[in-house]
Amino acid sequence: MTPPDDRHEIEALRALIAASPRPASLAERRARMEAITAIDPIPPDIALMPQQIGAVAAEWSLAPGSDPQKALLFFHGGGYLSGSLKSHRTLVTGAGRAAGIRTLAIDYRRAPEHPFPAALEDARAAWDFLAAQGYEPGDIVVGGDSAGGGLTLALCLALKAQRRPLPAGLWLVSPWTDLKITGASIAEKDADDPLIHRAYLQELADAYLAGRTPADDPLVSPLYGDLAGLPPALIQVGTAEALLDDAVRLARRLALADGRATLSVWPRMIHAWPIWHARLAAGRAALADMGAFARAHLG
Amino acid sequence: MTPPDDRHEIEALRALIAASPRPASLAERRARMEAITAIDPIPPDIALMPQQIGAVAAEWSLAPGSDPQKALLFFHGGGYLSGSLKSHRTLVTGAGRAAGIRTLAIDYRRAPEHPFPAALEDARAAWDFLAAQGYEPGDIVVGGDSAGGGLTLALCLALKAQRRPLPAGLWLVSPWTDLKITGASIAEKDADDPLIHRAYLQELADAYLAGRTPADDPLVSPLYGDLAGLPPALIQVGTAEALLDDAVRLARRLALADGRATLSVWPRMIHAWPIWHARLAAGRAALADMGAFARAHLG
Repeated sequence: MTPPDDRHEIEALRALIAASPRPASLAERRARMEAITAIDPIPPDIALMPQQIGAVAAEWSLAPGSDPQKALLFFHGGGYLSGSLKSHRTLVTGAGRAAGIRTLAIDYRRAPEHPFPAALEDARAAWDFLAAQGYEPGDIVVGGDSAGGGLTLALCLALKAQRRPLPAGLWLVSPWTDLKITGASIAEKDADDPLIHRAYLQELADAYLAGRTPADDPLVSPLYGDLAGLPPALIQVGTAEALLDDAVRLARRLALADGRATLSVWPRMIHAWPIWHARLAAGRAALADMGAFARAHLG
Repeated sequence: MTPPDDRHEIEALRALIAASPRPASLAERRARMEAITAIDPIPPDIALMPQQIGAVAAEWSLAPGSDPQKALLFFHGGGYLSGSLKSHRTLVTGAGRAAGIRTLAIDYRRAPEHPFPAALEDARAAWDFLAAQGYEPGDIVVGGDSAGGGLTLALCLALKAQRRPLPAGLWLVSPWTDLKITGASIAEKDADDPLIHRAYLQELADAYLAGRTPADDPLVSPLYGDLAGLPPALIQVGTAEALLDDAVRLARRLALADGRATLSVWPRMIHAWPIWHARLAAGRAALADMGAFARAHLG
């Protein structure tokens, strides 16, 4: 089929983002992320249920007809500093519907109040919680966008180090895999990317690393880890992304480690565009691909 | 689902290849390629029909129930030196069945007797022939493995230079995109790859370039071309491939040019493994993906 002319959709989204420049203060930044991501209503047929995991808030979602015995464990993006259950609710509930499974979104602790390894500790607690609820590793796809994609990979590396079983698949949307910020696309796509720029990434990395953790530690920058034995990964990235090379290099490193990876590149799309799937045809198509991926790999 | 344990399949294929080392003479090399690729019978329900395109031999195939108004135009691999209608008949007919369309395989002229641009001229003649037969560009997926993948991209660049319409999609299996032979994986995967090594690639490149064409000419090494405006591409590559980086870098270059690309990485698979789909589950799965890709992009 002829691709739909989706230029007007992405241009409208760019205009919306441009109208809301990133503020200076932490609180305003967090509010601004929700203001630009949580703009579409959650469909009324989605059942949401709060969940407490120790001190960490979480949220289940279930679309009608979905299998409650399979789960997407989801970590939101926001550079380890912003993002919330609210900011990514549209994305995670849309993914759960596409995959036909329950979702569990995690409100992990954020920098600068809680630098590494707080987010990873919360991710592991969420994984253990799902096990305690009766989910087998093969029943679970783990995923996230941006920093949440990096956190997904870090969780796998942490589990692997303990020789524990890994999830059935990984869904990585515009993953941030390199806190050393060495991707050539950071410069090459700087003018195209409306959200992500080198100075911003450096601020985020500094807050998460807190002067204590090397930027090339695989648990913050999985690109530098031993990726052998990781589950099949679906990596989705837009062409208007400074982090394009974080995705491309991840696919390459998974391939060097003899892994199963699919890198799906979407023209004109911006960082973490499936968040806006209610207004982007390419976001709905990306979620449909995620659904097919999850169905293919869940037991 | 749990991935099938396909290790015995690929090990058996590796043993078959190892039992037939590459000979020195040109005629023996060409015979050896057919000896290791044309080992599985063509299913009896496939209708084959010879076709002459000027001085170039070609072959149609049609599986029962396929749409004869859509076509896969196919260029075989073999480093521009080996490969034939016979060597890749299993691959192209399997792809046609998976996509539900007619196929047209081209016995383009080969080096060293016919260096560049002979193969490209024959590829263009085949494209023009399909147009004369009533196929619109949107009715055609063009594809190939190895050198045939490079030739597919070169054909697109040649058509683009004339501002002619391009095919609906590109199917690139283990494509050879860089006759400068600069991929890091050529060394990194040297021990894993049973077929492709630097010295062999250099021989092939020398024969095709014939001392007349620079190795970075985009019509022989599309990696160095302007890839803007190319059709959606499905790139399939195995992890046991010296040419892994020819595929990864192609995906990256398409992304930099704002293109639609899917890079699908298959663990343990060797160069152009879908040729052996009759004995490799991962070959059948790759052809199924090709079929879904073709159906999604054909008008």
